[in-house]
Amino acid sequence: MNTDRLVQLAHGGGGRLTRELIEREIVPRFGNGPLSGLPDGATLPSPGDRLVFTTDSFVVHPLEFPGGNIGHLAVHGTVNDLSVCGGEPKWLSLALIIEEGFAFSVLARILDSVREAADACGVTVATGDTKVVARGQGDGIYINTAGIGLALTGFVLGQERICEGDCVLINGTLGDHGMAVMSARQNMDFVKGPVSDTGSVQRLVAAVHEFGAEVRFMRDPTRGGVAAVLNEIVEGREIGILLKERDLPLAPATRAVAEMLGIDPLHAASEGRLILFCSREVAPAILKRWQALPNGEGAVCLGTVTRDKGRVVMETVTGGRRLVDVPRGELLPRIC
Amino acid sequence: MNTDRLVQLAHGGGGRLTRELIEREIVPRFGNGPLSGLPDGATLPSPGDRLVFTTDSFVVHPLEFPGGNIGHLAVHGTVNDLSVCGGEPKWLSLALIIEEGFAFSVLARILDSVREAADACGVTVATGDTKVVARGQGDGIYINTAGIGLALTGFVLGQERICEGDCVLINGTLGDHGMAVMSARQNMDFVKGPVSDTGSVQRLVAAVHEFGAEVRFMRDPTRGGVAAVLNEIVEGREIGILLKERDLPLAPATRAVAEMLGIDPLHAASEGRLILFCSREVAPAILKRWQALPNGEGAVCLGTVTRDKGRVVMETVTGGRRLVDVPRGELLPRIC
Repeated sequence: MNTDRLVQLAHGGGGRLTRELIEREIVPRFGNGPLSGLPDGATLPSPGDRLVFTTDSFVVHPLEFPGGNIGHLAVHGTVNDLSVCGGEPKWLSLALIIEEGFAFSVLARILDSVREAADACGVTVATGDTKVVARGQGDGIYINTAGIGLALTGFVLGQERICEGDCVLINGTLGDHGMAVMSARQNMDFVKGPVSDTGSVQRLVAAVHEFGAEVRFMRDPTRGGVAAVLNEIVEGREIGILLKERDLPLAPATRAVAEMLGIDPLHAASEGRLILFCSREVAPAILKRWQALPNGEGAVCLGTVTRDKGRVVMETVTGGRRLVDVPRGELLPRIC
Repeated sequence: MNTDRLVQLAHGGGGRLTRELIEREIVPRFGNGPLSGLPDGATLPSPGDRLVFTTDSFVVHPLEFPGGNIGHLAVHGTVNDLSVCGGEPKWLSLALIIEEGFAFSVLARILDSVREAADACGVTVATGDTKVVARGQGDGIYINTAGIGLALTGFVLGQERICEGDCVLINGTLGDHGMAVMSARQNMDFVKGPVSDTGSVQRLVAAVHEFGAEVRFMRDPTRGGVAAVLNEIVEGREIGILLKERDLPLAPATRAVAEMLGIDPLHAASEGRLILFCSREVAPAILKRWQALPNGEGAVCLGTVTRDKGRVVMETVTGGRRLVDVPRGELLPRIC
């Protein structure tokens, strides 16, 4: 017998049940800071410097997968977006769209994960919102987080600053999140299947801060994977990128699932990875520093910037060359 | 024949079609400011003072209704949340969750409304996100906006500052948004039906700024209406609120639809209204100032703060008294 309490439409109506949901599920987890008293908005101390502002909605299916759940993604995704823009993440908003009939037990697990991930990243959930939609108008829960960070001074980041000879670094294996979600979705039952890399890259960004202008640009390869990020950067420009298949960091389980499903791991999403472009001179020092940090152990140089106008090319293990194209995307909906 | 282009799942996959959607629909409307170049996050100038931060998701059904659409709500709702917290709205994020099969023509209309409303409010859409979910996992489009405002100095706002004898002001008629949406949902066909009050209250807030501590607290009566706001304020406290039915500002069409549907207009949502608690001394001056401003013409004193512990009471036109309770909420899902 299922005795789980379920979310009702009335939990979103703005009346007594809405307040009950907020008071039972939100306040105990997030009510110590600006959210206490449930104001319409949070008042935050003066940041004193430039801000970084970002938003992301999370619609991942299934909600829970090896390595994490939608709650982890909602924190890490936004923390990472702030980080790659050269920001120090500080405050998050948390907005839930819940489908009628959703189990409170799962909601609690997800909100616990939000709380844990936010604590680990040192960010405060400052404000929030909860809506409920009827059955068949959602899929369990969708979460939006917006984030505010303080702009770290010293960084001079911009795609246009990338030039020939620069190195393309990544902090670990490719596409683990995408393949973990796909294997959960397909009910693939592995003893050792792919595990999502969901995690924060903020410490890795803070660690390269002092290299200043030698760091050209950073981005996290989420939807569309590394291939989407790299193609976007070279499109319409005089530069290209050369990857070596031999050097691609791939977890064995991720490689196996990608092969089974016919998905190029370069098209698969990561949720705890950082692609960084920097001058050749500082690349070894950055890699060394990253390799000593959590979530940086697997850092490698993925490729180099070439004069191959607008093209991302991979040198295969057999010595051939193939074009790395942009995924059209329909293969991997709702991956984050 | 319907020749409208429709959103496909692939528009959310992070590949070529995602970029096409962003470049065709988002960049032309919002790409002049921090969104140009589509960074992962926007870098904003130093605000120099305390911030106000808020978020709201909009799931209104239907998406278009007399007086506005979900795009207007997404701007006004967040601008108003910032305003009632004593903030000057500056930047918005814009996150879309679109259902597969949604018509691009409707998307364009909604985004035009976002743009127009943001321009009218003087706020910048600084960052955004777009996701696509499959048919039956959404309902057309859901929109989240988070907002950042600058805290206006001088205000000392807090529910706990409200005391006996204070006046409860509102800038216009009650529940028009709720009744406009309900009549659209029920396909009620009126010559002169209710029209949503969706609009910004930021100028009304700026206009009372100089009254400083005489202004005790502000809130916008959205989901749950005026009844939810007032009950939340008095709950567990030594104070109560007395309303006079005779003084309730009600548009005739809103009153008629509320009666037809058996809904208490005090439970119906507004999206352009501001409830303000202030000392008796400054109430006439605030009303006078509001009445000279757009969206303030209909400003009235709705009631007074009493010693009636925790109770919101209405004196009826026939001289009786009835308790104004909190809506349970199931009557009016997806009103905003």
